Amino acid sequence: MSFNTFGKIFRFTTWGESHGPAIGCVIDGCPPNISIKEKDIQNELNKRRPGQSKFTTQRKEDDKINILSGVFEGKTTGTPISLLIYNKDMRSRDYETIKNKFRPGHADFTYFKKYGIRDYRGGGRQSARETAARVAAGAVAKMVLEKKIGKKYKVTGGVTQLGILGCNLKNWNDNFISKNPFFCPDKSIVKIWEKYLLSIRKAGSSCGAIIEIRAKGVPVGLGAPIYSKLDMDLAAAMMSINAVKGVNIGSGMNSAQLTGEQNSDEISQKGKKTSFKSNNAGGILGGISTGQNIVLSFAVKPTSSILNSRKTIDKFGKNTSISVKGRHDPCVGIRAVPIGEAMMHCVILDHYLMHNAQCKS
Amino acid sequence: MSFNTFGKIFRFTTWGESHGPAIGCVIDGCPPNISIKEKDIQNELNKRRPGQSKFTTQRKEDDKINILSGVFEGKTTGTPISLLIYNKDMRSRDYETIKNKFRPGHADFTYFKKYGIRDYRGGGRQSARETAARVAAGAVAKMVLEKKIGKKYKVTGGVTQLGILGCNLKNWNDNFISKNPFFCPDKSIVKIWEKYLLSIRKAGSSCGAIIEIRAKGVPVGLGAPIYSKLDMDLAAAMMSINAVKGVNIGSGMNSAQLTGEQNSDEISQKGKKTSFKSNNAGGILGGISTGQNIVLSFAVKPTSSILNSRKTIDKFGKNTSISVKGRHDPCVGIRAVPIGEAMMHCVILDHYLMHNAQCKS
Amino acid sequence: MSFNTFGKIFRFTTWGESHGPAIGCVIDGCPPNISIKEKDIQNELNKRRPGQSKFTTQRKEDDKINILSGVFEGKTTGTPISLLIYNKDMRSRDYETIKNKFRPGHADFTYFKKYGIRDYRGGGRQSARETAARVAAGAVAKMVLEKKIGKKYKVTGGVTQLGILGCNLKNWNDNFISKNPFFCPDKSIVKIWEKYLLSIRKAGSSCGAIIEIRAKGVPVGLGAPIYSKLDMDLAAAMMSINAVKGVNIGSGMNSAQLTGEQNSDEISQKGKKTSFKSNNAGGILGGISTGQNIVLSFAVKPTSSILNSRKTIDKFGKNTSISVKGRHDPCVGIRAVPIGEAMMHCVILDHYLMHNAQCKS
Amino acid sequence: MSFNTFGKIFRFTTWGESHGPAIGCVIDGCPPNISIKEKDIQNELNKRRPGQSKFTTQRKEDDKINILSGVFEGKTTGTPISLLIYNKDMRSRDYETIKNKFRPGHADFTYFKKYGIRDYRGGGRQSARETAARVAAGAVAKMVLEKKIGKKYKVTGGVTQLGILGCNLKNWNDNFISKNPFFCPDKSIVKIWEKYLLSIRKAGSSCGAIIEIRAKGVPVGLGAPIYSKLDMDLAAAMMSINAVKGVNIGSGMNSAQLTGEQNSDEISQKGKKTSFKSNNAGGILGGISTGQNIVLSFAVKPTSSILNSRKTIDKFGKNTSISVKGRHDPCVGIRAVPIGEAMMHCVILDHYLMHNAQCKS
Repeated sequence: MSFNTFGKIFRFTTWGESHGPAIGCVIDGCPPNISIKEKDIQNELNKRRPGQSKFTTQRKEDDKINILSGVFEGKTTGTPISLLIYNKDMRSRDYETIKNKFRPGHADFTYFKKYGIRDYRGGGRQSARETAARVAAGAVAKMVLEKKIGKKYKVTGGVTQLGILGCNLKNWNDNFISKNPFFCPDKSIVKIWEKYLLSIRKAGSSCGAIIEIRAKGVPVGLGAPIYSKLDMDLAAAMMSINAVKGVNIGSGMNSAQLTGEQNSDEISQKGKKTSFKSNNAGGILGGISTGQNIVLSFAVKPTSSILNSRKTIDKFGKNTSISVKGRHDPCVGIRAVPIGEAMMHCVILDHYLMHNAQCKS
Repeated sequence: MSFNTFGKIFRFTTWGESHGPAIGCVIDGCPPNISIKEKDIQNELNKRRPGQSKFTTQRKEDDKINILSGVFEGKTTGTPISLLIYNKDMRSRDYETIKNKFRPGHADFTYFKKYGIRDYRGGGRQSARETAARVAAGAVAKMVLEKKIGKKYKVTGGVTQLGILGCNLKNWNDNFISKNPFFCPDKSIVKIWEKYLLSIRKAGSSCGAIIEIRAKGVPVGLGAPIYSKLDMDLAAAMMSINAVKGVNIGSGMNSAQLTGEQNSDEISQKGKKTSFKSNNAGGILGGISTGQNIVLSFAVKPTSSILNSRKTIDKFGKNTSISVKGRHDPCVGIRAVPIGEAMMHCVILDHYLMHNAQCKS
Repeated sequence: MSFNTFGKIFRFTTWGESHGPAIGCVIDGCPPNISIKEKDIQNELNKRRPGQSKFTTQRKEDDKINILSGVFEGKTTGTPISLLIYNKDMRSRDYETIKNKFRPGHADFTYFKKYGIRDYRGGGRQSARETAARVAAGAVAKMVLEKKIGKKYKVTGGVTQLGILGCNLKNWNDNFISKNPFFCPDKSIVKIWEKYLLSIRKAGSSCGAIIEIRAKGVPVGLGAPIYSKLDMDLAAAMMSINAVKGVNIGSGMNSAQLTGEQNSDEISQKGKKTSFKSNNAGGILGGISTGQNIVLSFAVKPTSSILNSRKTIDKFGKNTSISVKGRHDPCVGIRAVPIGEAMMHCVILDHYLMHNAQCKS
Repeated sequence: MSFNTFGKIFRFTTWGESHGPAIGCVIDGCPPNISIKEKDIQNELNKRRPGQSKFTTQRKEDDKINILSGVFEGKTTGTPISLLIYNKDMRSRDYETIKNKFRPGHADFTYFKKYGIRDYRGGGRQSARETAARVAAGAVAKMVLEKKIGKKYKVTGGVTQLGILGCNLKNWNDNFISKNPFFCPDKSIVKIWEKYLLSIRKAGSSCGAIIEIRAKGVPVGLGAPIYSKLDMDLAAAMMSINAVKGVNIGSGMNSAQLTGEQNSDEISQKGKKTSFKSNNAGGILGGISTGQNIVLSFAVKPTSSILNSRKTIDKFGKNTSISVKGRHDPCVGIRAVPIGEAMMHCVILDHYLMHNAQCKS
């Protein structure tokens, strides 16, 4: 049982609130003798960092990573790796006006009902700020997998739908993703998305998004039957990200509409290489990796903190209305890309270690 | 770490293969002094039992439950409850012809690659036969929750899409669900589904389905932040069911297309009662129950064992083709309804106990 | 969290009561492709079986093992192994007279206080009958380790003290242990023990015992720092056995009396072989195996069910007295030998798999 | 699975090395709305702090606690509590001379063999420095239990044997313990211990110790059958402390020598109060608390870092000898008292929450 821990062998525990002194995580079970530098982690954190464009929250966060343990002379020792990021630019006063009100669609209502206590500062523990800690953990997992599997292992995520606007998956271009503020893999759609999101922002509204994450080079055989299926753990991982409401593996919800013929990815062999005609399975059958690319997508709901007025209640049970002032993030989904990538790394590494434990010992 | 165990406080471990002597589960952490009779469990198992209509597999399974421990004089004692179902009507010879071939879209390929050993009889551990054990566990969880929460607690599932045919959710009728072979909640669509599925069956093909599960009477405050979110655990639970490829909580994947205004379920108070104008959240905010109905849906892919021929390889790596003979299930999704209900019970009970442990002690 | 599960990767969950229809366990995480036959398990169970001499309980238990899953064509498949033993010779009426009374020194008092319900038949879940299930699990662990490590791996346990009578550890003879009814390794003491225990038995009394377990051939490096130390897990394993009240690793409690010079096991190297001058550490330093023999001992308290009268209360809170009739076990400690061996196998295998997961992947 | 995490519901994960920038822990599962101040934790840490007398290591550690999360306006919020202590007075150069040598009886040999990497600075993760983090966690557990159970709940530990010198348990005086540098409960022996330990210290040697921990006011019913027994978890907790080699519950190893009559603690009832004539059980029967005091003891082996020369090998496998220079702790056992108390608090709170989860919901 673990409220704030993720993973089975490669485990990380995150801690910290949006407006506390710091956030961080402790990674346990990391293999020893892996080269880890602060900059390896910093690079991943920089992708997630807000304030990089007008399309994400303007909160300035340096998000400077500190390695406090578990690494000696640049290498992991096998003992817990403690990572810490100090919080900066925390304007608690921004929250004074909504201190006692619940935002519809936000977790502040349920947290208060559950715990009977409220840390109103920026969402406290509910804040997406927590995800910085898991991006850091994911960066470590990535370094381990790149050493164990090699450079053929690669995870790439992109935003494939912004509100009501999709993109053309056939135009997916890994290299383009980092070159636009939407993590969009399709160059042809970016201009339209830009206009659309600006209009959402000006209207004081917000929109959702769909993110797709792909992992190449994952060996066949990772996963476990029934209650540690690779897709089960991936679904849990993605659903644990703030504001995620749906997860698809491969053809996902669309699988319902396929026939058995369409859905079955035909198999063929050429020399030592097994090939599949299609990938409706998203690289996972029976909870175990097939050796194909792992492909999943998830939906992020629109930001609940919007400028427009919504009916709600306060913590004393009185009817009122709320409209959020100050920093406003028109689409939180965009920043979910590096988070989804991080969770993919963590789940794959965990299953890699689990598989070896049971089947390769 | 637990390959075949589900849950944190209320935990169950399933075991058994399709064509072994028996299957079963061991439930740990069940509260004491709950009345449990074999017939309470049998009733739930009977819903899942195959061979009840021409739309599901013709394998005859009595699925008679045996309580081997943990219940004394009709009441749970707080010690592990061992449940066992003997396997019957196992025609292993049906599988001789496909003994060495992998079915595209089936888990037999990945199991063999993972473990280096193959139990070809009816899918072995990959078989949906395992789900009978969790339906039994779910029946126990249901009995506990009905005693703890009362009769207002109720879980109902239905098939809302059969292949390419949806149903009208506005026609949802709890009582109708058990009166048709599809677990369909919409009376107006059943005739059309019948024709459609018969044609699929005659064609030797199969189709997928979408199942929706609703839980009423769930108290506010269940769930836990970050890595034991109620929706995270529900997503994991549903994704652990054979052939499930996508999970939605509330508006799910569709959330991406909503605006912040549309998505936020406005809150109001009247006396002691908190109400929500809508339920895009599916009853869960920040991973914690709001007190609204919990609503989720999941997609089951088409049966991979179809009569039509598909290209594949055998266990020696040779190209070949396969078409499955004998018993054939045109839509495995139908029987997923009681399984989804069972998993809903188990997750809610688990979180109910967890919440009490931390917040009510 | 797991009330009735032991282990981390190689995990087993036991279930069943003394006088229910059966007892058993489910083993999860067992490596695939290990040859397991029912007779391998039966051999270990036979060591523990009561009724073999006048020095242990006269209850006749066949303890015939049934493998219900996880083994196909004689080999483990990597899926859960379900083992079941039917209960026989259950004379529930023996317990009628003490149905409402608590035995001083017995768990019936605390179980009733905890759960508010009482399975008075032979101790229910508190019965040492549960240990048959773990001996079965230990037999599987032994088979795995013998395949992975080889025949140099060997675990041997013996009774080194019977009540107030010790034995001479310098006379330890592995082969003699199975040739006397006390599992005593010292031939010179057996006659004296025999007289002593007969006198205890005739007096309607009971006595405790100390058991020592030795494991040879355990590789260096098993264990984990801080909260999964090998000695921590071994201490937990032994303390989980009914009636155990103390555990020593190596010099154990006696370590307190040593000087730093005496306690430190000096190290030397000859070619590839590292040697230690002594083994006060019991083969474990910092929670990690040194490559020496693992040596531990534990104390089993005297049987609480004795024929002599003791003051107690009944379940209604009335003062009364109790003396147990019928089958009487003058020293339960004797039968703890195969149980301690089984737990040693399970802990070592679990750490073997854990070590490989983190450090050998 | 959790290498560096302890507990099931109330869980803490420690991190940090002796000579890294900081050490700390993350507590998960702490109930909300408990008043926690830094000084509550600091008080417990101060007990453990070295450098307080000539009988413990002269390393100066401020051990100033920092609460980084989980506490808002002086109360726990139910989210993870991150505690951090910066390391000071780290003289890495002290270790240069023994950088490549293993200390007999020390964990440096096994850590190197396990991980293939060596943090030679002050023992790295093997250092007893880690225990400061668990003392901090224990302080939080204590605050929770004092609020939940009330002031009748009290845990007291003392050193009852120093090397070859015992004390008289009949002279146990709670108040005297904090008034002598040995945490000795028996005033009559202190002068003798003082002379004895000074002689050990001057000789450059070290000695072991036995510590006894008593918990009053623990409710009946805490614990769980078989694999989460209260005594099993306590034994594991104590064995996880550096240098501990043996654990006794109640009469412990001595139980072996008792008869059934002597061992059984007779029960009587007066009004609502259940009494026991003796406490050989140490307050635990069948793994569940009886309502009596919980009493346990454990042995700490002598410090392995001694000034006298010992034969050993270096990391290159060469025979050599070692004698440690610089700070020297003649009896590490003394400082184990607050650590044992802390672990007692943590285990009891964990079982308190577990019991409520299953039996009080």
